Formats: sequence, C-alpha cells, structure tokens
Amino acid sequence: MDELPGSVGTSASFSLRLGQAIFSSSSLLFMSLGVEFYSYTAFCYLVTIMGLVIPWSFTLALVDGYSVLVKCPIRQPGILMIIVVGDWILSTLTLAAACSTASVVDLLLHSHGNFCPPKLCSRYRISAIMAFFSWFLSLASSLFNLWLLPSL
Amino acid sequence: MDELPGSVGTSASFSLRLGQAIFSSSSLLFMSLGVEFYSYTAFCYLVTIMGLVIPWSFTLALVDGYSVLVKCPIRQPGILMIIVVGDWILSTLTLAAACSTASVVDLLLHSHGNFCPPKLCSRYRISAIMAFFSWFLSLASSLFNLWLLPSL
Repeated sequence: MDELPGSVGTSASFSLRLGQAIFSSSSLLFMSLGVEFYSYTAFCYLVTIMGLVIPWSFTLALVDGYSVLVKCPIRQPGILMIIVVGDWILSTLTLAAACSTASVVDLLLHSHGNFCPPKLCSRYRISAIMAFFSWFLSLASSLFNLWLLPSL
Repeated sequence: MDELPGSVGTSASFSLRLGQAIFSSSSLLFMSLGVEFYSYTAFCYLVTIMGLVIPWSFTLALVDGYSVLVKCPIRQPGILMIIVVGDWILSTLTLAAACSTASVVDLLLHSHGNFCPPKLCSRYRISAIMAFFSWFLSLASSLFNLWLLPSL
C-alpha cells in the first residue's frame, strides 16, 4: 500500500491535527476570555463545539505522532471509517458554529445600538476566523481519509 | 448494476430534488417577501445561496424525471462526480447560510432593542428552517451519489 499524505498515521496528518487543535484552542480562548459570551446563543454554541473539537483533534494528533514514531500506520477500515465520520460531523458542526459567530459579530458591528465595545468585538471576530481555519483543516483530514478508505 | 435508491436517475432522487427545489424556493420567498432583508449581511447571503440552489435542484430534478421516464439512468463516473461535488459544495453553502440566518434571527428576537417586528421575525425564522431542510435533502443526495461512485 502506498502512503497517502494526509491520511491517518502520516506526518502530514499529524500537522493537520496539530493545526486543528491549535486553531480551535485559540478560537475558544479568544471567545471565552471576554466573559460576556454567554449572553449570545451563537457564541455559547461555538464554545461548546470547540470543547468537542479540541479533545478529538488532540487525541488523533497523539495517535498520529505515535504511528509516525513506531512507523506503523493504522489501516483497519473500521477505525478509519469512525475517524472519517467523526471528522466529517465535527467539521460540519464547526462550520455551523463559525458561520453563526461570524454573522452575529457582523450584526453587532454594524447595528446602530452600542452593543459591542470594539475591543470585545475584534476578539469575537478573531475567534470566528480561527474557527473557520479549524473547519478547513478538519475538512482536509476528512477528505484525505475518505480518499484512502476504498483502497483498504 | 443494481439500482441504488436515491442516486441519480431514480424516482427517489427525483423526490429529493423536488424537495430541495421546494424548500429552497420557500426559503427564498419567506425571506424576500419582507423587503428589509438587504440590511443584514446574513440574509443577503441566504438569498444569494438560494438563488444558486434553486436552478441546480430544478435542473437535476428535470434530469431525474427524464431518466425515470426513459428508464435510462446516468452512469458516467465523470458526470456523477460533478453532481456529487456540486451537491456537496451547495449543501455546505446552504448550511452556512442557514446557520447565519438562524443565529441572526435568534439575536434579533432576544436583543432588548426593538429591531424586529414579530411578524417579520417569524418569517425570517421560517426561512431559516426551510434552508435547513434544503441542506438536509441536498446532503442526502450527495451521500447517495457518493455511495454509488466507487461501484462505477
């Protein structure tokens, strides 16, 4: 079996997972350092989803790192299927959270009421951008693994 | 080749496409009958995406209806690939639009300012729900066709 870069157990996959963990952690941090996030449904949703994505990405980063070290990538179709489906569900949820956050931030910035101190709002915006990056990397992982799946 | 229900050229696929066209049209109508939608970025985005989804679903519904009538389903991998990718991109965009709309509606309903007359807001909410239904059906089409793809 030829090694597909980006699939489970390669160093490219390890980088992807590490990127996901970093981006989702920074999204969570930027969002929750301002303590007002719980007054908006969309921001609470983002925090919840990031709380799911971080352990998932971190665990898979550990698995990938271990696989790279012992040079024995995972090739069981069952496990790969779980990883693809999990990645896909989490990337969908991340996209939903990122879009909700982005649209709420946009509304807060452009509404005439004085809802949002500029410092807080730019922090929310960075959080949404980080969530989009995390979505993109998670999607890439899912697609690489899906590509590998039929050849097993 | 056994017929997979839901893939291109079956009557199940025809129903799915028809459902997508109906839900996205009603989402567009509910959104644009109130003339204030262009003051919110998320609502403009929803209208744009629905304007893409409606012709796509309608065309594929026609193709499916024709295939069912002449009993000759499409089985070219290239065309199927285009349909899968197109469906997938449009379903992602629809999900993003639906989430943005839903979160903005939620914010408008629960903010203390008097932004949103109840009649308009419930119309926006119905529009977001219709967009979610359209996303779900579009995703189902995409998955059914993806399932068929490796067997060609």
